[in-house]
Amino acid sequence: MKLTYHMSTKVIMGEKCIRDNAELIRGMGKRALIVTGASSAKLCGALDDVTASLKSAGKSHVIYDKVMNNPTVDCVYDGAAIARREGTDFVIAIGGGSPMDAAKAIALLARQIMPRKKLFSGEFGTDVLPMAHVPTTAGTGSEVTPYAILTNDEIHSKQSISSPALFPKYAFLDVRYLNSLPHQAAVNTAIDALSHAVEGMLTVRAGIMSDLIARESISRISACFDALTGRSLDKENKEQLLYGSMLAGIVIANTGTTALHSMGYPLTYYKNIEHGRANGLLMAAYLEFLNTHVPEKISEILSLMNIDSVNSLRLLLDKLLGGKEAVTLKEIEQYAENSSMSKNVKNTIYEPSVTDMQGIYRQSFKL
Amino acid sequence: MKLTYHMSTKVIMGEKCIRDNAELIRGMGKRALIVTGASSAKLCGALDDVTASLKSAGKSHVIYDKVMNNPTVDCVYDGAAIARREGTDFVIAIGGGSPMDAAKAIALLARQIMPRKKLFSGEFGTDVLPMAHVPTTAGTGSEVTPYAILTNDEIHSKQSISSPALFPKYAFLDVRYLNSLPHQAAVNTAIDALSHAVEGMLTVRAGIMSDLIARESISRISACFDALTGRSLDKENKEQLLYGSMLAGIVIANTGTTALHSMGYPLTYYKNIEHGRANGLLMAAYLEFLNTHVPEKISEILSLMNIDSVNSLRLLLDKLLGGKEAVTLKEIEQYAENSSMSKNVKNTIYEPSVTDMQGIYRQSFKL
Repeated sequence: MKLTYHMSTKVIMGEKCIRDNAELIRGMGKRALIVTGASSAKLCGALDDVTASLKSAGKSHVIYDKVMNNPTVDCVYDGAAIARREGTDFVIAIGGGSPMDAAKAIALLARQIMPRKKLFSGEFGTDVLPMAHVPTTAGTGSEVTPYAILTNDEIHSKQSISSPALFPKYAFLDVRYLNSLPHQAAVNTAIDALSHAVEGMLTVRAGIMSDLIARESISRISACFDALTGRSLDKENKEQLLYGSMLAGIVIANTGTTALHSMGYPLTYYKNIEHGRANGLLMAAYLEFLNTHVPEKISEILSLMNIDSVNSLRLLLDKLLGGKEAVTLKEIEQYAENSSMSKNVKNTIYEPSVTDMQGIYRQSFKL
Repeated sequence: MKLTYHMSTKVIMGEKCIRDNAELIRGMGKRALIVTGASSAKLCGALDDVTASLKSAGKSHVIYDKVMNNPTVDCVYDGAAIARREGTDFVIAIGGGSPMDAAKAIALLARQIMPRKKLFSGEFGTDVLPMAHVPTTAGTGSEVTPYAILTNDEIHSKQSISSPALFPKYAFLDVRYLNSLPHQAAVNTAIDALSHAVEGMLTVRAGIMSDLIARESISRISACFDALTGRSLDKENKEQLLYGSMLAGIVIANTGTTALHSMGYPLTYYKNIEHGRANGLLMAAYLEFLNTHVPEKISEILSLMNIDSVNSLRLLLDKLLGGKEAVTLKEIEQYAENSSMSKNVKNTIYEPSVTDMQGIYRQSFKL
């Protein structure tokens, strides 16, 4: 029996958990950089909770709210310059995966000035501003991973920075922040979380402990399928999704993701398809491909979802995702080539070839 | 839904994992203090693996092998004095709970000089020598907890030091080290681990995530009951026990223990009864007591053990533990009084009174 397990973030889940834990924030530093996107942190109430907690802890703050979807390398260098200029000594990230991932790179670059190439090498020191992450979607799991995924125009795709130093110190999970999430964002992020747990079980690094957590995550997320298709998420569903996506984050923190993520990235980069949706569009064809190579794994995953076949999953995902974007055969060839460069492909329990990936894209887009 | 989860240690399990991970040890510091007991670390091969790994990482070391069972406060102050005198900047603990717990206090006191009273207050800073823990029993789970339990003669009992700064940086789990463990030590430590997972589910702090891990732990440990009673532990059993005890450590890192541990401590302090055995002697009567107050919880726990009643568990434990020590009614009165001072009692899902605890002792010792 071999296993490796690491996830150093302290997770605190509960309504008003940020206001109730001002004491923890007090211990983080003197002046906070709040990293967020343009509007969702304000809309959902998280920004108010964070600033109230900072105030009661007697800490000043600066807000950097320029993080766009799929944040660029420029964006995190800008954020780090502000962190240094403003003398901030800790970071609070509020948002979905984009602000949470950007915040990690900003916390790193605020302490360690380095050229872009080095940033993606992972070969940097452990000196990083302490971070607290506040997810406002139930998808990315970034609050409990050591990864920051950025858009890197040099390789025409998204690319991951990875280091144990990037685990946030705290993750605050408050289900109320999901209340203002639009339906399609809830769907896309739930699929992203599902895809993390499912892919975690399909990596070469999967082990008994990551599988234990992945199974729990898949069960919790799948229990919300009916409410997702019926557009009727209640508070309990949202809690299950928030808990399930955090668990899925722990899974990929330990296993990494697979070819499915590699194949989703070009759809996001070239077609601007939201990350969770991109994975969802490809998931059924991807599992069908793996079903011919590791049928017992796929069968276990489907059974955790309480779904009888890959085809039933396809129908469910079609219903959740609606009409698909148009993609050409030529584009598919390029995307498959592009995906094959990603290291996640080699992390897959059965490694798809470029041709296999073309087949998965074609089936997904009915070409 | 409320939950708190934290366990920052990186766990690496596998045969020869210490020799295979010299690179991690290289990053810990320049000169190691190896903290261990008189003989077991040498006997089981762990000390050789650690020194070989240190050598290949180019690090020097000093050995402090004076940790006795149920280590005293004197012992950890001695160890810390040696750490400072020898200029060691990281700690490797090898052994059961005693060396692993002592190592945490030593790593702390090596960096922060403080009077004894402050040590147990938990009100100290986070500056602690980095630690790697190598369990040679499958019981305590100390390798993944923020606790150090020491014998404190001032309160005539064992007492816990607790701080997130006491999580080891690494835990190396190699099943081969269990091969030289005497049968009764294997039994006692397995019961200790079982008791952690069971008690974790019976705390006021138990939550969905600690329960997930506790259930897995109880199942894994209980799957070895037959091999434990038949004295026929094979490699797979030992792996299950080592994995199960580590999981149980994660559970109590998040939930703490309950009145059962409080009641075991006086048996260890006054009667020199080994810690796991002490819990085992009391466990059936304790669960019977709780069964009248939280029957659904006890029933779930028994079902995870694949055991049909508290009485069947009593018979199993009697078989595993053999003849019981003699205890008088007067002693029991004192022990119950003593236990009631421990904070773990208040952490119990249904708090036993002093009279309840006397009853549990009396039933356990047939008085």
